[in-house]
Amino acid sequence: MGKVITNRDEDYSQWYLDIVKKANLAQNSAVRGCMVIKPYGFAIWERMQRRLDDMFKETGHVNAYFPLFIPKSFLSKEAEHVEGFAKECAVVTHHRLMNDPDGKGVVVDPDARLEEELIVRPTSETIIWNTYRDWINSYRDLPLLINQWANVVRWELRTRPFLRTAEFLWQEGHTAHATSEEAYQEARRMLDVYARFAEEYMAMPVIRGVKTPHERFAGAVETFTIEALMQDGKALQAGTSHFLGQNFAKAFEVKFLDENNQLEYVWATSWGVSTRLIGALIMTHSDDQGLVLPPKLAPHQVVIVPIPKPNDELDAAAARIMEQLRKAGITVKYDQDRKNRPGFKFAEHEMHGIPVRIGLGKRDLEKNQVEIARRDTGEKSFVPMDNVAGYIAQLLEEIQANLFRRAKAFRDAHITRVDDFETFKQVLEEKGGFISAHWDGTTETELKIKELTKATIRCIPLDSEPEEGACVLTGKKSERRVLFAKAY
Amino acid sequence: MGKVITNRDEDYSQWYLDIVKKANLAQNSAVRGCMVIKPYGFAIWERMQRRLDDMFKETGHVNAYFPLFIPKSFLSKEAEHVEGFAKECAVVTHHRLMNDPDGKGVVVDPDARLEEELIVRPTSETIIWNTYRDWINSYRDLPLLINQWANVVRWELRTRPFLRTAEFLWQEGHTAHATSEEAYQEARRMLDVYARFAEEYMAMPVIRGVKTPHERFAGAVETFTIEALMQDGKALQAGTSHFLGQNFAKAFEVKFLDENNQLEYVWATSWGVSTRLIGALIMTHSDDQGLVLPPKLAPHQVVIVPIPKPNDELDAAAARIMEQLRKAGITVKYDQDRKNRPGFKFAEHEMHGIPVRIGLGKRDLEKNQVEIARRDTGEKSFVPMDNVAGYIAQLLEEIQANLFRRAKAFRDAHITRVDDFETFKQVLEEKGGFISAHWDGTTETELKIKELTKATIRCIPLDSEPEEGACVLTGKKSERRVLFAKAY
Repeated sequence: MGKVITNRDEDYSQWYLDIVKKANLAQNSAVRGCMVIKPYGFAIWERMQRRLDDMFKETGHVNAYFPLFIPKSFLSKEAEHVEGFAKECAVVTHHRLMNDPDGKGVVVDPDARLEEELIVRPTSETIIWNTYRDWINSYRDLPLLINQWANVVRWELRTRPFLRTAEFLWQEGHTAHATSEEAYQEARRMLDVYARFAEEYMAMPVIRGVKTPHERFAGAVETFTIEALMQDGKALQAGTSHFLGQNFAKAFEVKFLDENNQLEYVWATSWGVSTRLIGALIMTHSDDQGLVLPPKLAPHQVVIVPIPKPNDELDAAAARIMEQLRKAGITVKYDQDRKNRPGFKFAEHEMHGIPVRIGLGKRDLEKNQVEIARRDTGEKSFVPMDNVAGYIAQLLEEIQANLFRRAKAFRDAHITRVDDFETFKQVLEEKGGFISAHWDGTTETELKIKELTKATIRCIPLDSEPEEGACVLTGKKSERRVLFAKAY
Repeated sequence: MGKVITNRDEDYSQWYLDIVKKANLAQNSAVRGCMVIKPYGFAIWERMQRRLDDMFKETGHVNAYFPLFIPKSFLSKEAEHVEGFAKECAVVTHHRLMNDPDGKGVVVDPDARLEEELIVRPTSETIIWNTYRDWINSYRDLPLLINQWANVVRWELRTRPFLRTAEFLWQEGHTAHATSEEAYQEARRMLDVYARFAEEYMAMPVIRGVKTPHERFAGAVETFTIEALMQDGKALQAGTSHFLGQNFAKAFEVKFLDENNQLEYVWATSWGVSTRLIGALIMTHSDDQGLVLPPKLAPHQVVIVPIPKPNDELDAAAARIMEQLRKAGITVKYDQDRKNRPGFKFAEHEMHGIPVRIGLGKRDLEKNQVEIARRDTGEKSFVPMDNVAGYIAQLLEEIQANLFRRAKAFRDAHITRVDDFETFKQVLEEKGGFISAHWDGTTETELKIKELTKATIRCIPLDSEPEEGACVLTGKKSERRVLFAKAY
């Protein structure tokens, strides 16, 4: 296979695109900004979905499905929401094509113009709250804890596979509550679910925080976020959870009779993560040999490579090992390709980020052992045949833990406390990562810093301590530090 | 709860809509023809999805995801396909809204017109075969066995929840093969997977057959179908599998180097089932008390109702039973509602089609027994507490088998052999169901019969025997019987 991807040092952005391509994760389609998620990339998404779905259900949520299309007028009902989402979107104006009267092909039938244009959902608060009006009458109908797995479209100008695409796959939770407190707690709880998923399954450390008013979701009272750090020192927003107050209930007139028989507006949350997480996963762990996957999300946790190629004896030994592994709940595939040499195959499986490789050779078999290589460190060991499953079960846990440790060490080493603007700019340019600095709390200063440095306030960490200080730009009084970074 | 749905005898169509509504399966949305699938309806779909997905994977398929949008020009590339699908569809013409210069709200920005209109996929052959061109070079890249779970849009004029909606959820398999024979066998194999799913999981008997040329999928060489019979005597096409020959490979120039180094067009199949299956499920088993669900697809297989209402003692007994049941892999919920009376709850759980109800009363507890009622027959039995799980495990199997038996007896009783056109019309009007009759093999006759009777040829059954005969309409020579019916 040879050296087929750009090194991270040379060109991080190209390295990312090379991995997406060479690990068969995704590719651009004929439709601008829309990607094709290839089977191997989709297998990772399926594992993410399955686990997240389980976590949502464990916390009492159920799935439902709402329409792809949103009547144009709905978007205008929540004043801030329309500013945030009505601008770059896919607009359906007609419902029919006809044969081109002037020749070949088909054209839009001018007689099939819709009375009201439909927007392909960029997010579903409006259509869902319009529906919740029918579902909610009294406090007995609350809470509503509903999630939807769906595709959404935002007409992005600059796209990158997984990180920013016109169409993407996501889940969006939309819950309705009788009290402000309960809705607020729900938004916090789902942030914790996301953080746990990111850390335990993706092995990706995240900082939990609150967005500034300027960075809030359009229509939210408070936006919670989990922020991760990529290997190039840029931050990535990996998931958000919004406390929506009564904004959407008011926009769509959703009221309920409370226990005192008073009519009240309903309280709301929404929260979502998307296929963007696959981009985050790639950029957190992968290296110059290709993708690195945490065992808990790897489509195949183990690959067995017969050396130098398959034969009856090696096939039989592989079958025994596979049986051992499958009994232990470990996913494994056997490389049956007869054409390529082991070195080529090793490189290919490294490119695909398979956590553990078993080399199965005739001489090892005579010694009743196999060679086991781990993808994260490249280390190799010889392991007795009858202990392969036990050894690998433990090794997979160790790899999962090591990936998290390594990413966390990198992240922690890239949070820099800064107290003056010169250092701020220098750290941002030379070291990157998060900058923990004082900010005077105004959107004006936030935007000025962004203009001067391209850094944005990623969040006000939930665990931040009150600390008297002076804003890194204006010197005005500040009561706590916030985290700045350049971001995806 | 009382009598809340129309009887089937009175108005079958209204009965169906009543069940969809009262069993909380779905509702119409603010967007014409698009439905909201409510949590209970979606839970049934999730169970269908999970099982079908397992079956696809067991037969070697993997999932992927292709764009929602299809460039308008793609639809024109396959001559028959464009006739079938380009007509009633959602057309995206613009990518931006702007504030209405004349007042409130937003309007389409005339400057944001797309160079080429995009169609919201009605089916994905075109965009997928345009992608396969990049993926297929040699016979070593074949077969490609790919499935996609997705939403699709067809601008239907008359819609009914699940049965015919503008947007619906489905899966579409798209496979690519090196030989005609292999592709043909794949199309047949997936038809068998659908038939097995329908019969084993939905408890819905189906007839496997081939569509007439007139009823073929637009762009297919052969369309296989499974046809079910609803309780009102109308047929329902429950799934189709298409042998596409080289039509799409030719339209999108997808060639491969075969083992003899010859460049050949690739052979294709596609196959799909949709949320329409939920409509079929409702109309196969349900009755005047509401939904009836086969245990294998029921979100809750068992409900426990404390009589007359929850208290510590009953709660504790229910907890013990639930533990027993869950250990046996049976899904169960406990009705904790304190407000309504048992009679109301019984009706509600019947409406939702929960296969088994356990009544838990103080007097029964003293006798160390519970009352178990089955939804399909209404029969009740008293069962000793320590044998509840064993009894119910067997009962669920019996209910599953009984539903299939019952539906099959009805279906078999509604296949009528007819040899003259007067009887044809009479049977169609008075008895309904499938009519097995001779047909001269021409589209002209097929359309004439449809015009005269509204019956269509549902299929030429795969197991039909050659039989000399005379066409029921024209008297011309015929070599086998086909199945006619009015259909959804």
